[in-house]
Amino acid sequence: MTLWKATVAYDGSGFHGFAVNADVRTVAGEIEEALATVTRSQVTISCAGRTDRGVHSRGQVISFETPDDGPVSIEAGKLQHSLNRLCGPEIAVRDLQSAPVGFDARFSATWRRYRYRVSTAPIANPLLRDVAWHVPESLDIAAMNSAARALHGEHDFASFCRRPDSMPDGVERSLVREVLEAEWTRHVGDDDSLLTFEVRATSFCHQMVRSLVGTCVDVGLGRFDAGSIPSMLDAKDRRAAGRVAPPHGLVLWDVGY
Amino acid sequence: MTLWKATVAYDGSGFHGFAVNADVRTVAGEIEEALATVTRSQVTISCAGRTDRGVHSRGQVISFETPDDGPVSIEAGKLQHSLNRLCGPEIAVRDLQSAPVGFDARFSATWRRYRYRVSTAPIANPLLRDVAWHVPESLDIAAMNSAARALHGEHDFASFCRRPDSMPDGVERSLVREVLEAEWTRHVGDDDSLLTFEVRATSFCHQMVRSLVGTCVDVGLGRFDAGSIPSMLDAKDRRAAGRVAPPHGLVLWDVGY
Repeated sequence: MTLWKATVAYDGSGFHGFAVNADVRTVAGEIEEALATVTRSQVTISCAGRTDRGVHSRGQVISFETPDDGPVSIEAGKLQHSLNRLCGPEIAVRDLQSAPVGFDARFSATWRRYRYRVSTAPIANPLLRDVAWHVPESLDIAAMNSAARALHGEHDFASFCRRPDSMPDGVERSLVREVLEAEWTRHVGDDDSLLTFEVRATSFCHQMVRSLVGTCVDVGLGRFDAGSIPSMLDAKDRRAAGRVAPPHGLVLWDVGY
Repeated sequence: MTLWKATVAYDGSGFHGFAVNADVRTVAGEIEEALATVTRSQVTISCAGRTDRGVHSRGQVISFETPDDGPVSIEAGKLQHSLNRLCGPEIAVRDLQSAPVGFDARFSATWRRYRYRVSTAPIANPLLRDVAWHVPESLDIAAMNSAARALHGEHDFASFCRRPDSMPDGVERSLVREVLEAEWTRHVGDDDSLLTFEVRATSFCHQMVRSLVGTCVDVGLGRFDAGSIPSMLDAKDRRAAGRVAPPHGLVLWDVGY
């Protein structure tokens, strides 16, 4: 078997999320189908971030094994080209290389970085409708950054996550994560009504980035005080935090190993 | 009658261009239909730039008249809101105000500015597939800017335009235009593989921006020498210039009055 590591970008608009899910079109489903076509065998992929429906990627990382004894001998450049031909233009394999023994896109990752864009223009920009959350209000970015700073470090993020199923042995999954970076910046460029949130953590629990964004935006609107983040974290109760931002503003930016 | 001036943004991907055209979905067709719904009368719009199929807008300007004696009395804020509700999210009326007597979006305009984006990333970015031309090559931006500078000033752009129909009296339409700005810049930001062409002229003839872009890219690829622009202009023959760039990288940026 050959073990591969690939960096995958996608427009999440047309997919029901990343993970394979019978009956609906998913990013992993498309890639696994393409791999089956190329290798003539069933291939299962592992990923660094199981993005939700509508969430995009610039730097998702996946790993998978292909048989060496199949009818098709596989060379990296050809495999990348075949996958792009079969999965494009909504999915693009930006990089593909063989990986060292034991590499796993999910378990070998040491951090994930996401970006989220918010447009505060009075009227929604049609060209941003699938890639930014439109919040036509004046947002206090200083307060939002004060909230973001309070997220740094290791915390139990139960207030900012969809509660996961327990594990088969009945043990509850830990929602402790370490946030390494969290910052809002005003986009410098054509349209200064764009705000970008960049957040990097060891890993994220389900809906965590979107909950952090929704809560920061609520702080920016004055619905919550920036100083209330520590008590939200302490509550370990989803009802203590703000709303969940919509998926289409979110991009899995890159992953560290 | 009340005369209006509106600034209109749109995602051109789903339209067969701006101008009304029976049987196909066009931007002007959608807006005129919405105006008919709101005013209960037939309204014809004038525009600063008749963009082609797939071309986008950030700052298209339109003008139109609405009856004052109709069943609906019209106030600017309400009209803008109604149009956005009926035409969104692919079309957005960013600004609407009453215009002075004699104003016409087309004939009163003194210049139009367009932007065109080219992505030179080795693998196409799925999130840019409707908004940038993917040219996965190394482009010589200095040569492209040398070509762009040669376009400045007043010229007969017959080599860069689709030949128009003659006027009803048999007289040929002038293709003399004055280019006021034309410059390529490398996009500073997330993805330094993006190049932007910004061009401003008194007006443009049909397919002119896309022909200028295609020719500049051909110069950037070394297919033409940057010094060949004056002879291309002199030829007044479409075959003398480079190819026509695809429409989806083009945005009507703003219009001057």
